[in-house]
Amino acid sequence: MPGVTPDVENKGEARVNILFLMIDQLRYDYLGCTGHPTIRTPNIDALAARGVRFDRAYVQSPICGPSRMSFYTGRYTHSHGATWNGVPLPVGEMTLGDHLRPLGMNTVLCGKSHMAPDRAGMDRLGIDPKSTVGQRLSECGFDAWLRHDGELPESMDGVATPYQDYLRSKGYDGSNPWNEWANAAEDSDGTLRSGWLLKYARQPARVANEDTETPWTTTRAIDYLEQAGDAPWCLHVSYIKPHWPYVAPAPYHDMYSPEDVVPPVRAETERDNPHPIFGDYQKKRVSQALSRDEVRDTVIPAYMGLISQLDDEIGRLLKYLDDTGQRDTTMIVLTSDHGDYLGDHWMGEKELFHDCSSRVPLIVVDPRAEADTTRGTVSDALVEAIDLVPTFVQAAGGQPRYEVLEGRSLIGHLHGQQGPWRDHVISEYDYDFKSTRLSLDQPIGECRLAMIFDGRYKLMHAEGFRPMLHDLAADPQELHDLGEDPAHVKTRARLMDRLNAWYRRHHSRTTISDAEIARRAGGDMKKGIFLGFWDEAELAAARKAGVSGN
Amino acid sequence: MPGVTPDVENKGEARVNILFLMIDQLRYDYLGCTGHPTIRTPNIDALAARGVRFDRAYVQSPICGPSRMSFYTGRYTHSHGATWNGVPLPVGEMTLGDHLRPLGMNTVLCGKSHMAPDRAGMDRLGIDPKSTVGQRLSECGFDAWLRHDGELPESMDGVATPYQDYLRSKGYDGSNPWNEWANAAEDSDGTLRSGWLLKYARQPARVANEDTETPWTTTRAIDYLEQAGDAPWCLHVSYIKPHWPYVAPAPYHDMYSPEDVVPPVRAETERDNPHPIFGDYQKKRVSQALSRDEVRDTVIPAYMGLISQLDDEIGRLLKYLDDTGQRDTTMIVLTSDHGDYLGDHWMGEKELFHDCSSRVPLIVVDPRAEADTTRGTVSDALVEAIDLVPTFVQAAGGQPRYEVLEGRSLIGHLHGQQGPWRDHVISEYDYDFKSTRLSLDQPIGECRLAMIFDGRYKLMHAEGFRPMLHDLAADPQELHDLGEDPAHVKTRARLMDRLNAWYRRHHSRTTISDAEIARRAGGDMKKGIFLGFWDEAELAAARKAGVSGN
Repeated sequence: MPGVTPDVENKGEARVNILFLMIDQLRYDYLGCTGHPTIRTPNIDALAARGVRFDRAYVQSPICGPSRMSFYTGRYTHSHGATWNGVPLPVGEMTLGDHLRPLGMNTVLCGKSHMAPDRAGMDRLGIDPKSTVGQRLSECGFDAWLRHDGELPESMDGVATPYQDYLRSKGYDGSNPWNEWANAAEDSDGTLRSGWLLKYARQPARVANEDTETPWTTTRAIDYLEQAGDAPWCLHVSYIKPHWPYVAPAPYHDMYSPEDVVPPVRAETERDNPHPIFGDYQKKRVSQALSRDEVRDTVIPAYMGLISQLDDEIGRLLKYLDDTGQRDTTMIVLTSDHGDYLGDHWMGEKELFHDCSSRVPLIVVDPRAEADTTRGTVSDALVEAIDLVPTFVQAAGGQPRYEVLEGRSLIGHLHGQQGPWRDHVISEYDYDFKSTRLSLDQPIGECRLAMIFDGRYKLMHAEGFRPMLHDLAADPQELHDLGEDPAHVKTRARLMDRLNAWYRRHHSRTTISDAEIARRAGGDMKKGIFLGFWDEAELAAARKAGVSGN
Repeated sequence: MPGVTPDVENKGEARVNILFLMIDQLRYDYLGCTGHPTIRTPNIDALAARGVRFDRAYVQSPICGPSRMSFYTGRYTHSHGATWNGVPLPVGEMTLGDHLRPLGMNTVLCGKSHMAPDRAGMDRLGIDPKSTVGQRLSECGFDAWLRHDGELPESMDGVATPYQDYLRSKGYDGSNPWNEWANAAEDSDGTLRSGWLLKYARQPARVANEDTETPWTTTRAIDYLEQAGDAPWCLHVSYIKPHWPYVAPAPYHDMYSPEDVVPPVRAETERDNPHPIFGDYQKKRVSQALSRDEVRDTVIPAYMGLISQLDDEIGRLLKYLDDTGQRDTTMIVLTSDHGDYLGDHWMGEKELFHDCSSRVPLIVVDPRAEADTTRGTVSDALVEAIDLVPTFVQAAGGQPRYEVLEGRSLIGHLHGQQGPWRDHVISEYDYDFKSTRLSLDQPIGECRLAMIFDGRYKLMHAEGFRPMLHDLAADPQELHDLGEDPAHVKTRARLMDRLNAWYRRHHSRTTISDAEIARRAGGDMKKGIFLGFWDEAELAAARKAGVSGN
């Protein structure tokens, strides 16, 4: 990457295990340590005090599947091609496990990955999906200790999944206990109410706290650690909550009240001639719902309750590591795959690039002495989700393969030795799969959005439409779109030039390293390939002069 | 691709076999049918009279390996990532065989492919290189009836290759018969002279014509056809000549004389403050050599002799098809992987984007009645090498997979039914591997060149440098670089915008088709995923209204 100093070298630091915690749909600003005025997340806050909190971390796409494929491959969505939920990750893409296993690390999933396997690719390459390679390709390179992607709606009635099996074992009956118990509430008169419906978000789930997805996933993670033995591991504990449906169990369902809800970040002017993409998203049902105060006051307390539940469970998991003497040998990383508008900017869900959607919390605790100087600090470096794979490779004692990986290791930041760093982040979104494509009459393949943020200005390029632009120095809440402001012509052009330069970079030249290129350059003569020599005398002179190639 | 009409549909036309002829380093203008005043290529000219000659066909990179990887994958080098000779084609890339075999076609190589296998990728995926899948991955998806990439210099002394074995069987002895016989000449006094040295290009090779690479490859191709049976086939007969070394056997070595050599296309002004990349290439030994009239007059007659030899051998191969009754069932395609400067523009070799390097001959004969109206015509459509794979898929009765393939089928042109077509071609080059990187002090990864040609203007974008621009209407010989001409600011900006738009396209979203995207859009409700509904009444109303998703 131009302008970025090389990695801090591995100088024989102790290698560490890696606990990689992902919290689904957690906004960057819904933690105590990131400034939320009412939420209680003491365990996560304590974690931040032990490591570095990266305050300007952005995902590569503000939606589960593509974001995770970038987290797990270390590559932009433009590169790995799994641009939306359910788009198979091409079989040739390397994943975290491919980078860590050669370093001797078990790379294990406990929870959600949102991986869609490339069955056609496996078939083409003659790979049996049931073989070890095939199973890993099906699970995004992880060994799946537990795979649980959440949502088990009616269409999955009768489908056996680990969580359904667990619920049944605990006496929650029916063809789909998730749908009928975990994602359901009941009225005072005993009427069953669907957890999909926002109105019931303040009712407790019909399952005991210990049987909800967050504690169950935590227990399964501890089960893994119990039997892990001495082999190094990277354990990805990947929670489905507080992702919708917004259903929390007691006591978390009423831990927060409307008084704890912060006001929405929005301005009437945002509804006045908005960017066409933004305007269409504002019209979506979920946006209209979350634009109502009644809905926010019902949903957000549940969202916050789910986060406090997560905080308790993460506390339990960290205590297990402490109790088993693993505190000093485990790197702990906590992040999210994207945020949640929650009514900000007249929107629900995620998918566009306002900070509440594309910016995520990121805490990294490196237990080694080299990181002592940075403990409890906050970094404002522009960080991307794709930086985690190379960070993990270095933590495991290896050298990141930058011909494949498009992020950069954060170890330099953690060890207080980082030189110049990247000056922008990129995030992308493919709305081919959304009704917005139809509303705006765009051809399939042309529904590409890309955001570039340089630390002050954030530009969204939308093929076929004008850009959006926000100046986060003057307008940190991103309420004033400068996408058509004549005063910002140069800023828009500068960011678009930079974005285009990023597109033009190598994204697919993955089979040769810079070191190998340097080694190969001009080696023709050694091989006996002689180009452009008239006669023996010329050739002899060149050989004498040590000419090596062309 | 925006602006291009859909393919002409397969309407039950008879499927055809495909003879895919590649001639290495053949300039577009060194055939009788493309206007060369002195060369004799009657068989190729007759082929053009039977089909469509595409007069503006460009390769995706003017150098063997990357160009061929684009021919064989149907994808740009920016997409497949094998950007230079010897860079392994990533194991996940689909090749011609992957597209044709499911249609029942044997896809077979006889000759050169310049494929470098991705052994690390195969290892990662647990693919044994000796398995059928592994062998095909190693041979760019072909079943290798014969693999022969040419050059067998001193460093390959003692290495067993099919051609070395053949030469030995014919009594040409030594540890490297190619080096000592096929690529060698001798003086009147019997002194052995290396075929690498340009001075000896007018001497005959030390092997009989029938034992040189072109006839040997032709015979091996006929051997394949002799045993092919009834199974449909796509046979890639891929000749190494007239690629350097410029050594022709008798009688071709003196079939042409300096009087047959056309004058160089060059202007003194091209040496006056040239574009830095162009200027560095002019300085290379091979460029300086070919800038000398003595060298041109020695080398070009041999180059022309090798082409006439090819024409004779292609005539022999076509006669075999005629004699065996296969004329009406075989599509014949003849093209080249790039040209040869031969002293034009003060350059030797290829690699930059002047027509003599990046433009190639392309003749396609479709034997079916649907193509009768276009026989003997010349098309000026802007065609790219990547158009061949989808053309072949349609000829084999299939539907091209455009989520993977970046070219477009030429069948519409062949059948006289093509609607609007692309309005530019793209070609790329990666000089990371060349001494030019060092001369110009460019970082590895930044040595990217891209050419865009819209049928009139040809722009070369070079990262970190000014562009080159030629107006081929006013300056068909490309002698006047308008890259800094203030009169052409808008043209340069327009082409650069278009090039950037091309970079921004999906190049890696290969695992989902447009049809599947259309099918999936808004299907959440059917799955039982309900976003943004307040209560039962809202949900019931949406269901009644047939709302399908978000």
